[in-house]
Amino acid sequence: MKARVGIIGAGPAGLLLALLLHRSGIDSFVVERRSRAHCESRVRAGVLEQGTVDTLTAAGVGERMLAEGHVHHGIELRFGGRGHRIAFEDLVPGRAITVYGQQEVVKDLIAANLAAGVPIRFEADDVAVHDIDGDPFLTFGADRLDCDVIAGCDGFHGVSRASVPANRLRLFEKTYRFAWLGVLADVAPSASELVYSASERGFSLHSMRSDLVSRFYLQVPPDARAEDWTHEAIWAELKARHETVPGFTLATGPIREVDVAVMRSFVVEPMRFGRLFLAGDAAHIVPPTGAKGLNLAVADVRVLAAALGEYCRTGSEAGLDAYSATCLRRVWRVQHFSSWMTSLLHRFGDGDGGFDRRIQRARLEGVVRSRAQATVLAENYVGLPYEDA
Amino acid sequence: MKARVGIIGAGPAGLLLALLLHRSGIDSFVVERRSRAHCESRVRAGVLEQGTVDTLTAAGVGERMLAEGHVHHGIELRFGGRGHRIAFEDLVPGRAITVYGQQEVVKDLIAANLAAGVPIRFEADDVAVHDIDGDPFLTFGADRLDCDVIAGCDGFHGVSRASVPANRLRLFEKTYRFAWLGVLADVAPSASELVYSASERGFSLHSMRSDLVSRFYLQVPPDARAEDWTHEAIWAELKARHETVPGFTLATGPIREVDVAVMRSFVVEPMRFGRLFLAGDAAHIVPPTGAKGLNLAVADVRVLAAALGEYCRTGSEAGLDAYSATCLRRVWRVQHFSSWMTSLLHRFGDGDGGFDRRIQRARLEGVVRSRAQATVLAENYVGLPYEDA
Repeated sequence: MKARVGIIGAGPAGLLLALLLHRSGIDSFVVERRSRAHCESRVRAGVLEQGTVDTLTAAGVGERMLAEGHVHHGIELRFGGRGHRIAFEDLVPGRAITVYGQQEVVKDLIAANLAAGVPIRFEADDVAVHDIDGDPFLTFGADRLDCDVIAGCDGFHGVSRASVPANRLRLFEKTYRFAWLGVLADVAPSASELVYSASERGFSLHSMRSDLVSRFYLQVPPDARAEDWTHEAIWAELKARHETVPGFTLATGPIREVDVAVMRSFVVEPMRFGRLFLAGDAAHIVPPTGAKGLNLAVADVRVLAAALGEYCRTGSEAGLDAYSATCLRRVWRVQHFSSWMTSLLHRFGDGDGGFDRRIQRARLEGVVRSRAQATVLAENYVGLPYEDA
Repeated sequence: MKARVGIIGAGPAGLLLALLLHRSGIDSFVVERRSRAHCESRVRAGVLEQGTVDTLTAAGVGERMLAEGHVHHGIELRFGGRGHRIAFEDLVPGRAITVYGQQEVVKDLIAANLAAGVPIRFEADDVAVHDIDGDPFLTFGADRLDCDVIAGCDGFHGVSRASVPANRLRLFEKTYRFAWLGVLADVAPSASELVYSASERGFSLHSMRSDLVSRFYLQVPPDARAEDWTHEAIWAELKARHETVPGFTLATGPIREVDVAVMRSFVVEPMRFGRLFLAGDAAHIVPPTGAKGLNLAVADVRVLAAALGEYCRTGSEAGLDAYSATCLRRVWRVQHFSSWMTSLLHRFGDGDGGFDRRIQRARLEGVVRSRAQATVLAENYVGLPYEDA
């Protein structure tokens, strides 16, 4: 088999790339080791930047997102017994976020690709990358796909990055002393916007997926296990961390899913190796505090799709040559924002005699007292302009 | 002897407090263990916030500062082979900094206090604080000063804080893996505004005291000694760290003074113990990167003078009771800014595999690419409004 671009991974990055290439008349082939049902049900991110929404809409997969997604014009920071709204409509007029689950984005992208005739091979066994410095090809099961370029969109644990000789990779990594317990519950959200609560008991996030489904996160020790948390304990802790302002009551309901997410910052440099281009989680992981993982993958894919378009139309590799540096500028700024939000909101223990905790409180006060500082948070949260980073 | 307020220390904090109290008709007595000549020649800070300038002017000691000081409407951040101006006139209109040496401020304050008849005892031996929970008094040499209140303005190493039982103090401290080598040179500044250079060889600051005198700082190892640096080595290093942009040449000249400043963040809580009130460096030290030490002392003194004025006029202790909490709000925000500037600009080694260095570069890029982020730097650099923190 042949395709101009072989894409590994049917997550948001790989699927969006396939669709954008198709819209430019470039054929690709998507290979995914999991089933379609699995891809469509993975609960992940749910906060889309303005640019992500615009990109998906321009790619022709905006219809359901615009109908069912919820546009939010602010978030709440809760600390010291008070809630403080970061008002996007005031601080970054015209920009907002859309709450729409990642698995819904994936469903829309799979449907659009299949409708357009883009081949997606689910449940592909033993995907392997070959000859990235010559004439690249993929093998899976008994098949072989020859291509001009391979796009590695298969996430942190995928085969793409793992196929690159270690001496060609520079890895940057930071781990955190806590994890997130994620909770999906069949209960109406108790607030109309996301609530980031920096409580004395640790961080907690109140988020939502729809009018009837809430999504919560609790800062937990790094070795926490989902099965050790009873539903009663989860609700008690969520209440303790959120019911810290007068008049706020957290509604409870049946819990559908509990998972633990590792907190990690990770970047590989460069993001291109010969004919292999990494995009999304295959190249970088951000801690989820800033809700940037999916959005950063979309930013990578925009750059890669444009570069591949130029290459296929004109033969020029200028865009491909610039791909890694172009993406990494944004990657590092988003890494900074994600770790900034993480350190702003979590409890880090008192090994420093309390100095850092005091500084953290001063940072929170600064965000709610300084319009400029609130604007920094808002402009990063809704997403830096693509031309800017 | 008697005075309403006994003031320990004839630095900027103690002298300004004495003068403000005098303007309110409250008598004080200043006790200083060093000589007047010593106080007037200590080279320290030289960047005055807008609020500091306004406060000194209102206190009647602005004449020479306004005539001889240099108003600067921006600073330069230099990194990655380019200089980036942070333009105060654009980002924080109407606010600026004034470059005027701390020892000049001290000279002006001593002269004004003596002209007003405020007693200052220089070269006082064995200053001691007594009975801060009852009827406080100071002793020095063979003298005793009874007072209603003692103001401890005698710096980090002074007797004031050291007189408080350890179990009543909560200390917060952070040390840094580097120090600053300070250089005073008889040479015209090579730039018209301060240049903060985050070079690959480490941080360096180009500052000035006058049209003919420049002040430089070099990040050096924490155990560096001034006598180990030849003047040739100093100029070579200053050139290497500053001549990183096209067309910039650092002028050299005779070096008058070389010193090493420890980098430290320190706060004591509370700032009041019975009848003893700490102000300035006696209560907190900031790393010098943000040029905040003197300015923060002035902010403390403003609060203390107002509280003492209310107390002496009306007998109300409300202001005195609020003193510590009021000051500490600003102290911690300024601590945050000072450590933020410090971590933005210095080299920290690569023990983290380079992750933090990449984040640092992304932070610098963010400051020069985001107007909001540049505004955060500017509004802190010229000084947060007193009512705001």
